[in-house]
Amino acid sequence: MEMLEMDDVLLDATPLSADELHDMDRYWQACNYLSAGMIYLRANPLLREPLAKEHIKRRLLGHWGSDPGQSFVLVHLNRAITRQDLNVIFISGPGHGAPATLAHSYLEGRYSEIYPDRAETEEGMARFFRLFSFPGGIGSHCTPETPGSIHEGGELGYSLSHAYGAAFDNPDLIVAAMIGDGEAETGPLATSWHSNKFLNPVRDGAVLPILHLNGYKIANPTILARIPHEELAALMTGYGHKPYFVEGDDPQTMHQQMAATLDRCIEEIRAIQTRARTDGDLSRPRWPMIVLRSPKGWTGPREVGGHKVEGSWRSHQVPIADPESNPESLRLIEEWLRTYKPEQLFDESGRLVEELRALAPRGDRRISANPHANGGALCKALDLPRFEDHAVDVKDPATTYLSPTGVLAKYLCDVMRRNMTGFRVFGPDETASNKLSAIYEASKKTWLALTEESDSDGGELAADGRVMEMLSEHTLEGWLEGYTLTGRHGLFATYEAFVHVIDSMFNQHAKWLEKAKRELRWRQPVPSLNLLITSLVWRQDHNGFTHQDPGFLDVVTNKSPDVVRIYLPPDANCLLSVADHCLRSRDYVNVIVADKQPHLLYLDMKAAITHCTKGVGIWDWASTDQGQEPDVVIASAGDIATMEALAAVEILKGLFPDLKMRFVNVVDLFRLMPETDHPHGLSSRDFDSLFTTNKPVIFNFHSYASLVHKLTYRRANHVNIHVHGYAEKGNINTPLELAIINGIDRFTLAIDVIDRVPALRGVGDHAKERLRDRRIEHVTYAHAEGIDREEIRNWTWKGDDAVKQV
Amino acid sequence: MEMLEMDDVLLDATPLSADELHDMDRYWQACNYLSAGMIYLRANPLLREPLAKEHIKRRLLGHWGSDPGQSFVLVHLNRAITRQDLNVIFISGPGHGAPATLAHSYLEGRYSEIYPDRAETEEGMARFFRLFSFPGGIGSHCTPETPGSIHEGGELGYSLSHAYGAAFDNPDLIVAAMIGDGEAETGPLATSWHSNKFLNPVRDGAVLPILHLNGYKIANPTILARIPHEELAALMTGYGHKPYFVEGDDPQTMHQQMAATLDRCIEEIRAIQTRARTDGDLSRPRWPMIVLRSPKGWTGPREVGGHKVEGSWRSHQVPIADPESNPESLRLIEEWLRTYKPEQLFDESGRLVEELRALAPRGDRRISANPHANGGALCKALDLPRFEDHAVDVKDPATTYLSPTGVLAKYLCDVMRRNMTGFRVFGPDETASNKLSAIYEASKKTWLALTEESDSDGGELAADGRVMEMLSEHTLEGWLEGYTLTGRHGLFATYEAFVHVIDSMFNQHAKWLEKAKRELRWRQPVPSLNLLITSLVWRQDHNGFTHQDPGFLDVVTNKSPDVVRIYLPPDANCLLSVADHCLRSRDYVNVIVADKQPHLLYLDMKAAITHCTKGVGIWDWASTDQGQEPDVVIASAGDIATMEALAAVEILKGLFPDLKMRFVNVVDLFRLMPETDHPHGLSSRDFDSLFTTNKPVIFNFHSYASLVHKLTYRRANHVNIHVHGYAEKGNINTPLELAIINGIDRFTLAIDVIDRVPALRGVGDHAKERLRDRRIEHVTYAHAEGIDREEIRNWTWKGDDAVKQV
Repeated sequence: MEMLEMDDVLLDATPLSADELHDMDRYWQACNYLSAGMIYLRANPLLREPLAKEHIKRRLLGHWGSDPGQSFVLVHLNRAITRQDLNVIFISGPGHGAPATLAHSYLEGRYSEIYPDRAETEEGMARFFRLFSFPGGIGSHCTPETPGSIHEGGELGYSLSHAYGAAFDNPDLIVAAMIGDGEAETGPLATSWHSNKFLNPVRDGAVLPILHLNGYKIANPTILARIPHEELAALMTGYGHKPYFVEGDDPQTMHQQMAATLDRCIEEIRAIQTRARTDGDLSRPRWPMIVLRSPKGWTGPREVGGHKVEGSWRSHQVPIADPESNPESLRLIEEWLRTYKPEQLFDESGRLVEELRALAPRGDRRISANPHANGGALCKALDLPRFEDHAVDVKDPATTYLSPTGVLAKYLCDVMRRNMTGFRVFGPDETASNKLSAIYEASKKTWLALTEESDSDGGELAADGRVMEMLSEHTLEGWLEGYTLTGRHGLFATYEAFVHVIDSMFNQHAKWLEKAKRELRWRQPVPSLNLLITSLVWRQDHNGFTHQDPGFLDVVTNKSPDVVRIYLPPDANCLLSVADHCLRSRDYVNVIVADKQPHLLYLDMKAAITHCTKGVGIWDWASTDQGQEPDVVIASAGDIATMEALAAVEILKGLFPDLKMRFVNVVDLFRLMPETDHPHGLSSRDFDSLFTTNKPVIFNFHSYASLVHKLTYRRANHVNIHVHGYAEKGNINTPLELAIINGIDRFTLAIDVIDRVPALRGVGDHAKERLRDRRIEHVTYAHAEGIDREEIRNWTWKGDDAVKQV
Repeated sequence: MEMLEMDDVLLDATPLSADELHDMDRYWQACNYLSAGMIYLRANPLLREPLAKEHIKRRLLGHWGSDPGQSFVLVHLNRAITRQDLNVIFISGPGHGAPATLAHSYLEGRYSEIYPDRAETEEGMARFFRLFSFPGGIGSHCTPETPGSIHEGGELGYSLSHAYGAAFDNPDLIVAAMIGDGEAETGPLATSWHSNKFLNPVRDGAVLPILHLNGYKIANPTILARIPHEELAALMTGYGHKPYFVEGDDPQTMHQQMAATLDRCIEEIRAIQTRARTDGDLSRPRWPMIVLRSPKGWTGPREVGGHKVEGSWRSHQVPIADPESNPESLRLIEEWLRTYKPEQLFDESGRLVEELRALAPRGDRRISANPHANGGALCKALDLPRFEDHAVDVKDPATTYLSPTGVLAKYLCDVMRRNMTGFRVFGPDETASNKLSAIYEASKKTWLALTEESDSDGGELAADGRVMEMLSEHTLEGWLEGYTLTGRHGLFATYEAFVHVIDSMFNQHAKWLEKAKRELRWRQPVPSLNLLITSLVWRQDHNGFTHQDPGFLDVVTNKSPDVVRIYLPPDANCLLSVADHCLRSRDYVNVIVADKQPHLLYLDMKAAITHCTKGVGIWDWASTDQGQEPDVVIASAGDIATMEALAAVEILKGLFPDLKMRFVNVVDLFRLMPETDHPHGLSSRDFDSLFTTNKPVIFNFHSYASLVHKLTYRRANHVNIHVHGYAEKGNINTPLELAIINGIDRFTLAIDVIDRVPALRGVGDHAKERLRDRRIEHVTYAHAEGIDREEIRNWTWKGDDAVKQV
């Protein structure tokens, strides 16, 4: 048996004077009153008349349960901010309890500044209440419309990673992250506690996690509220925190406890920062955190119809459901609302009384107005190097090999060097595997956990690193979202198959961007979220089938055309051009698909820029139609897909010297869509001039074939577009074998051309047989002999015997 | 300050006799030898000749790092199994270190039983080595091909949830779950520790987590290996476990420690089970777990080229990379391999020597042969009630409303009652929200954490509950996967938008099923994984935009047609028929899309069965073409989509009595695909006879419109198929408003029909204007007045004024 010293603290101080306590409690009651008002009232917002049925909304919607706890924290954060002139933003993990955040923002005047129709007047309040959870009105989560929010909380699990993302490189900022105990059960949240091993007290701000033991989820108790105190204290200690507990239901006691605890936490944060910043102590500190255990639906109705409501899951949404049909319910609601004494909280005009308004911070210090939560307002453009300086020499297309991400890495290293306070690169323990190690020359990997001597072999761990590596795609994505939403720049590189781990986070971020961009002029554009998808499906060596899934693009294409972009640069120079473009952009999710393995180079820098700017184009050097109407269009998108398509052209050239082939490469995938459906879409005229209106198009695609059909089904020539792509077939294969079994290989493509071009029918039969033989020969050879590194390197469209021998 | 008593134990016993220790160590060395052999050797498997270049594989692939640690555990599990006749399966979290599991299975003879070409002979061993990570050969993860595996470990994070899934309802089973310290950083793993609050020591088996502190990931140290001992002990204690530590690198000491620790853990597990089973003590026990800290690449080369290898990330894959070009490396490899003394481990024929073979368990007790890891072999069909008994009376189509999931719940309750040992229902705190509460009548919610008096309000928590609710889709999905792969049945109900949280888990499970089903005859079919997607996009009330994402179907359609099925039953009776079908099926992922809100009933049970069996059909009662060639086909898939399409038909009937409309409803989505692409696909003839070859088809779809195009682009009439679906537009809207802004509403559909049917051009202009007005009127009304429950209920195709007034 061993004893662990637990800094499990329950403070017993009373820092608040009676007046202060009284006013803070009234401010809190004002929040609670507004929260309840939002849920129930369509008129009579200040209860100046007796409550009647017609004042009640016709449908009651919203979440009451976590509002009072959240407001409680907000009131105390305000005290801390004003006392010490702190720079604080608030993350509402239980964001579906938006009434708390909305009420707070309204009381600070910020809400009415942005939405003048919801002024600080009786009329404005009525409209505010009415619009909440009302058709066409205010969402009941902390949506982008919510001032001071960078975290909607519609999908649970990301509050803490968002908070850390916001705190990185903001040394002055304190991010108070309120974590729902329901949310705390999710995987992403459960591991995001370990973010504290990546927070540098010198250059980063602080995160103050406040775990809200609200007790219940929708219909069940929560796990963390139902483990013994010692277990919870151990868990938080194990996560590397020093837990403080604030527990109870008596507001007076709780106010004192919370004020004392928050004071102590701020004090500790400052002490940690001073030790690090002044004394240079970079050992990982045990950052404080708070466990707030308060009743669900605190201050709400105790009991309704014989059922416990305050302190029960019955408070989760609308605690009293039937006031329109049940007079007793109506009475109970009025009784409850009047306990807050609205007549003492709001003045004649309907505005919060002066002495309470004095409690709120001023200007940008207001949590609802803090510019960090409108990150575009603080955003500085990256100081970008000339990407052309990293260009790779390409004398003849398709003769030399380079790892595209390897080339990109040097450019990113340059970007990093010039932007050492507002740019980070993220990756789940794969930065080196993804051939991006060159970045380490500019900055190491962030690491504040323990180190061992042998770690220095490679020399990449450092407290002030700017490369963020943790084996949690969720945490990385959350960090990056928080980082960009507060106005900074980044890039997340990850294995293609496992980007699906964050499908849902991508969905939610795209939705946030879309709302902010399309509907909220007050939200300034934020840096795009750049996802580099690498370690691609076509070259998985020993990893096999589990690592073959290029379907993220299907998820991306479902999101609004206003905010999503997909690029498949075919080689290293194209990748540089695309990366530069993405790093300059705002308010998008840019998805870049580029492999880490050595691939052929096709375009010199000038040609690459032109090609990427157009997004799609004919490669004359690979075509044989010489500007005439072709017999067939051979198209490609993606690196391996392009190489195989070019190899097919090469084979066909040898077989049929008169065949007029046009080679089209697609970089910007949305070019395929009609211009009416996507801003990058080609006009019909342009599309038809590339792909013809009636010739066969053999399209070799990086991902699942159906995606090309999804994007092109309205095109005139769609019926002639024949797409080859990943067909969900794979195992431990050589790259060429994998291409063969999925039908994206040179041989299969050439056969398809022979089948589709009327002039080749019959005359191509013998060639088809030889092509089929070549496929079998490769597989037979590989299975008998294996295949070595050299052979893989020589698997090229010109060098491969396969081409020569056909 | 408070002190927590920590059961943090490092045992100091020496249970192994010298002989036993010696033999176990040799067995371990045999495992390690085989692991290294798999990575390096293509010939000379027993090193009977001096190692030469030509014995080495031409490409070196595989993961060495975690193999020795995993084999170490397996050797000790074997001792425990044979001593006490235990029933144990092993989950390899770091499944990419498959050489350990493969070696173990080969030594137990199981591998050769299944794959006779890899016999226990020198020749068999050579082939075994050669095929590993070789084109067309053996995967380097614990793929489905691996005997004894139910967990591939290609994507990290699910070992513990899989383990719990396997342990549920298997009281006799011990699931040893080896958790990689890299994997432990993932979110899904981090929260799955809390599974211990859902394990009932009476009716469930035990899970023994073994956290392997291997020290490094691909290129970085791991977090859990680099926090102080006390923090790690606190973390495990906080997760509810009693941690035992086995730490070191000296094999002799480590063997004694591990044996003593494993003995103790088994003893504690038995004591917990006895307390619960005999004494009826159902308080949550603190289950033991083991922290094994051993060097990465243990027993491998210490140093190569001046770099530390054993105990470093350099051991992760191939520790010595260049034997073909570097004679010194070749020499080092030989030296290393010979440290295992293969000549003493294997007899003349190449088989493990007799005295070591005696250490392995026999028959089905072998971990590699345990039938629980080939769950189909143990699977019993569910005892299913007649679903027809739950049929809802439908006199006239589309006149009455019922919640489809509400009806399903009663059927599931019946299923539960008849299958109280092999069926569970899973949901993330949403079972009640999803209107499935009727299930609680058969079984409560599993809960072994603390309870409070007020929990009993609803009365649904119980240690022996069979409804699994935790707010972690990852954990639930992992449990269900583990449960079905060990041969039991279940259904997972979840909100539509958030099923994306498990996109990647779905992908991986589908891949597993596909391999097992298509290529491995020895794996018996397992129960399908049934996903009920509910709380659908079209009715989100206050939750708004974040809760609107029907795109999971796009992810599903990318997977192999052999294993995925999608059903969109339009009403409650159809849902019953579909559910019964899915619960009887094997080896699929069945995705059922059905809402929880009250929806119209269309078909009586008989008609529903016929319709669902066909999967797609004409609804004559809604059509006006009377068997003739129609002017237009109006098609639908999904409940709201169907209601709106029917309402459009009703509107059009009123406007154009002579219009010949054919109404087609699709239940089985893959019917839309060509029969050549999916086993459920319709033949061209059948498709064309339903959808015509040249008439406009107005298709109202539940999800994103492009999915229908993706499935039908090869159909003759594709160019005339006009799909309406979710267009990524939404907010706090009324259901009808949401339909309108996405263009799936009755008015928009009717307008589209008028536009597409040549005979209606011009004559329909006035009607179109009125229809447009109706759209605006609804939105204006809703924004002014809100909309109450009654109005929502009356939003019907017959009852709605909208229809009457046009």
